[in-house]
Amino acid sequence: MTSPSLPHSSHARADTVPREAPEDAFRAEDGRFVDRLHAELERFFEGQRDVLGAISADTLPLLEAVAGLSSGGKRLRARLCYWGWRAAGGDPEDPAVVRAGAALELFQSAALIHDDVIDRSDTRRGAPSVHRRFEALHAEHGWSLDGPAFGVAAAILSGDLCLSWSEQLFAGAAAPGAARARAVFDLMRSEVMVGQYLDVQGEVAGAGQDRAGAVQRALDVIRYKSAKYSVEHPVVLGAALAGAPKAVLERCSAFALPLGEAFQLRDDVLGVFGDPATTGKPAGDDLREGKRTVLVGYVRRLGDEAQIARLEAALGQADLGERDVAELRAVITGCGALRATEELIDALTAEAFAALDRLDADPVPLAALRGLAAAAVRRSS
Amino acid sequence: MTSPSLPHSSHARADTVPREAPEDAFRAEDGRFVDRLHAELERFFEGQRDVLGAISADTLPLLEAVAGLSSGGKRLRARLCYWGWRAAGGDPEDPAVVRAGAALELFQSAALIHDDVIDRSDTRRGAPSVHRRFEALHAEHGWSLDGPAFGVAAAILSGDLCLSWSEQLFAGAAAPGAARARAVFDLMRSEVMVGQYLDVQGEVAGAGQDRAGAVQRALDVIRYKSAKYSVEHPVVLGAALAGAPKAVLERCSAFALPLGEAFQLRDDVLGVFGDPATTGKPAGDDLREGKRTVLVGYVRRLGDEAQIARLEAALGQADLGERDVAELRAVITGCGALRATEELIDALTAEAFAALDRLDADPVPLAALRGLAAAAVRRSS
Repeated sequence: MTSPSLPHSSHARADTVPREAPEDAFRAEDGRFVDRLHAELERFFEGQRDVLGAISADTLPLLEAVAGLSSGGKRLRARLCYWGWRAAGGDPEDPAVVRAGAALELFQSAALIHDDVIDRSDTRRGAPSVHRRFEALHAEHGWSLDGPAFGVAAAILSGDLCLSWSEQLFAGAAAPGAARARAVFDLMRSEVMVGQYLDVQGEVAGAGQDRAGAVQRALDVIRYKSAKYSVEHPVVLGAALAGAPKAVLERCSAFALPLGEAFQLRDDVLGVFGDPATTGKPAGDDLREGKRTVLVGYVRRLGDEAQIARLEAALGQADLGERDVAELRAVITGCGALRATEELIDALTAEAFAALDRLDADPVPLAALRGLAAAAVRRSS
Repeated sequence: MTSPSLPHSSHARADTVPREAPEDAFRAEDGRFVDRLHAELERFFEGQRDVLGAISADTLPLLEAVAGLSSGGKRLRARLCYWGWRAAGGDPEDPAVVRAGAALELFQSAALIHDDVIDRSDTRRGAPSVHRRFEALHAEHGWSLDGPAFGVAAAILSGDLCLSWSEQLFAGAAAPGAARARAVFDLMRSEVMVGQYLDVQGEVAGAGQDRAGAVQRALDVIRYKSAKYSVEHPVVLGAALAGAPKAVLERCSAFALPLGEAFQLRDDVLGVFGDPATTGKPAGDDLREGKRTVLVGYVRRLGDEAQIARLEAALGQADLGERDVAELRAVITGCGALRATEELIDALTAEAFAALDRLDADPVPLAALRGLAAAAVRRSS
C-alpha cells in the first residue's frame, strides 16, 4: 500500500505502473460503476413507466414502490459482481456487467418486498415497507374493504413484478460467459428462496429440534439465505460473465463464501446488540421475530437450563420490551454465546482474506475486493 | 372437413395429403405434446429435488407443493404455445417449444400460488391451496407460533421459487426466434401482474368510481390479467419462438386476443351462474371476493338505483349465503347485465373465429387452434 503521507509519489513512476494507488483507483472506478448502475435502473424504470402507463395510470404506484425501494441501499451485490468481473479480466466499459448488476439489485428489492410481508415489517431503508405504503394509499383515497389485506396483495404483486424485471435485465446481459453466469443466477435464486424457507421453518420448528444441531442449522440458513446470495454468487457471477474458467470461479468462492458468512454473522450480532440509530431497526427485532440465529444456537449449546428456558420463552414474542431484550443480551453474553460467535466471525474473516491473497488478479480489483470485504465485516448497519 | 361417416376415405389419397382428418391428427399430436410436457416438468423437478435435497431435506415440501400443483390443469397455455409454434411452421420434434410450454405452466403455477394467498382461497384444483397445505404441515408437526402466518410465508416463497424456475426453463428454450419470444414473455409477465393489481385495486376503489366507465375498467382487467396472458401471449410466443415475422404475430393476436376475452367473460359468468360441481368452486365466490367483473359493470350501467345499491352492499362480503347469491343473480339477470355479457361473448367469439380463418397455416395447426378455441369458450369449468 502506498503510504498516505506520500500521495503523489506514484505519479513519478513509469507509465506501465498505475498512476494512482490501487485503493484510490478502486474508489474512483467503483463510484463510476455505481453511477452507471443508477442510470441503467433509471432507464429501465422509464421504459416500464411507459408499459404500465399504457395499461392504466392507476398501476403506476407499483412502479413507484419498486423504484423507490431500489433507489437506496449500498449496492453491495452489484459492486461485488462488478469486481468479480474485473478480477476475471472483464472490460470496465462493457454494459453487460452493469445490466447484470442492475438485475442483482432488482432481485434484492423483490426479496426485501416479500421478506417484509413475511416478517410483517413496517419499515425498510428508513421508509415504510411496500405493503405499508399501499395500505397508506388505501387510507389516503378512502377506499373500501380491508386496507392491510390490500397492502399485502399489492406488495406480493410488486415483488413478483420486480422479480420478473430482474430476470428481464439479466437476460439482456450479453457477454462471453452468459451461459455460465445464467447457471449461477438460477442457482442463486433457488438457494436464497429455499434458505428463506429454512429460516421461517426454523422459527416454528426450532424449539423442538435437538440442541446439539442448532448451531449447524443456523449456519445452513446463513449460508443459503445470505452468504451465498449476498456475497459468493455476485462475485462468482461477475467472474463467470467475464468468461472465467472453473478454477478461477472456485478461487472466487473460496474467498467470498466465508466472507459472506462472516458478514451475516456480524449482522446477526448487530440485530441483538447493535445501536438502533446505526442499524435502522429496533434493537432485538431478530428476537421478536423468533429468528434462530447462530447466537441462539450457541445459547442452546452452551447455556444452562434456566438460560435456555428464558430464551425459548422469549423468542418470537412480538411484545418483547427493552428490559426483556436487555435481559436476553445478558443471557447471550453470560453463557459465552456472543464470544463463540465473535470467534467464528474472526476465523471466517481470516479465511476469506487468506483466500483473497491467493486470487491472481490485477491490483485494482484486488484492492476493491479487499475494501468491500473489510467494510462488510466491520459494517455498523 | 372430412365427413365423420367416411373415416377411411382419406387413406385412398396421394401421400402428399394427410392420411388423417386434421381434427384427428391434431388430437394425436396434441396428446403427444402434453406427454412430452409432463416428462419435461418431471425431469426438471427431479433436478431441483437434488438441489433442494443437498441444502436440507426439510426444504422438500417446497418442491412437493409446486410439483403437486403443476401436475394438474388443462395445460391450455402450453398447448396454445405449441400450436402457435406449429402454425408458424415450427418443427414438432424441437425440444425448445416443450421447454417454453413448461415455462408457461410453471409461471401459471406461481401466479395461482400467490393468487390464492391474495384471495385467501382454501382450495385449488380440488386440493388444498399451497398456503393451506403448509398450514396443515405446521399443525401435523405440532410446530410453534402462528400456523396460518407460516402457511402464507411458505406460499409466498413457493411462488417465488416457481417463478424463478419458470424463467430457468424459458432461458433454456433455444430456437431461432428466442429473442423475440423473450420480449413476449417479458411483456406477458409484466402485464399479468399489473392486471392483477388493477383487479385488486378495482375491488377496493371500484365502488367510488364512475358508473359509466365500469364496464371498460372491467374489460381492461380481463384483457391484461387474463386474455393476453392466458391466450394471446402463449400463441404469439410460440409463433415468435418459431421465428415468425411480425405480420404473422399480428394475425395470431387478432385471433387470440378476442378469444381470450371471450374465454374470461365465460369464466366470469360461470363464477356467478356456474354449477359448483363442474366449476369446482362455491357459486358466487367472485361476488364474495368483490371482483369487479364485466357483469358487475353492466349492472352499474343498466340497473336501477335499488339494484345497484343491492349489489354494492353485497360485493366483497365474505359471508354471503346461498339466498343472497340467488338474489344477486336475479338482479344481474333482471337488469339485462347477463344478456349484455353473453352478447359480448358471442361477438368476441365470432371475431376470433373470423381472424382464425385469415390465418395462413397448415390444416393440422389450424384445426388445433379451432378446437382449443371452441373448448375455451364453451368450457364448463
